[in-house]
Amino acid sequence: MNIIEYSSKDILALEQRYRAMFVNSLGGFKSLSLIGTRNRNGQSNLAVFNSFVHIGANPPLFGFIVRPDSVERHTLNNILETRIFTVNHVRKEFYTAAHQTSARYPEDVSEFEATGLTEENKPGYYAPFVAESHIKIGASFRQKIDIALNGTIMILAEIMYISMPEDALMPDGFVDLEKAGTITCAGLDSYHSTERISRLTYAKPDVIPGLMDNIHSGH
Amino acid sequence: MNIIEYSSKDILALEQRYRAMFVNSLGGFKSLSLIGTRNRNGQSNLAVFNSFVHIGANPPLFGFIVRPDSVERHTLNNILETRIFTVNHVRKEFYTAAHQTSARYPEDVSEFEATGLTEENKPGYYAPFVAESHIKIGASFRQKIDIALNGTIMILAEIMYISMPEDALMPDGFVDLEKAGTITCAGLDSYHSTERISRLTYAKPDVIPGLMDNIHSGH
Repeated sequence: MNIIEYSSKDILALEQRYRAMFVNSLGGFKSLSLIGTRNRNGQSNLAVFNSFVHIGANPPLFGFIVRPDSVERHTLNNILETRIFTVNHVRKEFYTAAHQTSARYPEDVSEFEATGLTEENKPGYYAPFVAESHIKIGASFRQKIDIALNGTIMILAEIMYISMPEDALMPDGFVDLEKAGTITCAGLDSYHSTERISRLTYAKPDVIPGLMDNIHSGH
Repeated sequence: MNIIEYSSKDILALEQRYRAMFVNSLGGFKSLSLIGTRNRNGQSNLAVFNSFVHIGANPPLFGFIVRPDSVERHTLNNILETRIFTVNHVRKEFYTAAHQTSARYPEDVSEFEATGLTEENKPGYYAPFVAESHIKIGASFRQKIDIALNGTIMILAEIMYISMPEDALMPDGFVDLEKAGTITCAGLDSYHSTERISRLTYAKPDVIPGLMDNIHSGH
């Protein structure tokens, strides 16, 4: 196996679009979801995100990164205006439509209409869900953190609502994403389905982790 | 398809471990890497993380979340002490060892020794890499952000060094993670290999995204 190495200087010397593609690939596989919002005038917006990060379970908090100078600014503005948004997992059946939401549509165009995805409205919830998604999350804005290092923003939010297929929920609370059809992505434009290798039991010193399928005692 | 729904109240009423398993599953598939550090006395530490998030490409920045009251506190202390650490992608060949680093070993035990993974030291780089990894990143600490909402911490860092298999690097800077053997994870304990569906061309309004394999013109 031939190994290629890069120093900090090498990375900074790369052509801009090449470097964006390269560095975006380096973290490994990523979550893939569509964030649904609506502005004060009722105009809906839908944008693909791959930076969902778990922050905590009690209360159920997560974060994601927004680039304010990009197509993501409509999402940001709507969240700050209305403090409510949705997160909708992407399935193989509509990943090209999800990708297409990253095109620079004018502000008065809804990415739902532009891409053919279906707005699903739930009573008492101002932000639109994606009907085609199987796992749908309703979230409330909690905090905006400015990342001074490069002008990006982290949005922190709390999960207020979840809708999912019942058969994807396992007895211990684990959600089987493959059963729900959720796919993953890499870099800026690569989409992947997954195949479970296994679940492992809770790790303890001096005990070799077991495959959960084979071990039925609790931990 | 039977749908199951949860309100905020439903989520907060779940038993603690069940809720942790549940909420950790909701974001979709996650990056999977081992963070290598060394304290001032030379003691190495290795911990599995799944919260790597891309922050920017110029400079190449990323972040990850640390829970200071958990097994992750050694990683945090070492990074704050030495300001340097490594990120190493996990392959199927050693995912059980990666999982095992999450056991609560005493501070004077190296998870390298405990799990059988091999410390790889590079000249001028104080933190240890994982020899078994194919994609290895050297990083410098840049900023610590305290998340007051639940007491977690986001570490921001800059990529200073990369080592990877040459044949995983595509002509446009995309890194083929499958060629490098990188796997993904879900929830707290589920490990998955991936299969590419396709790469899509850069999205533009009024153009249907193409499969990159079929389109050879640049964008």
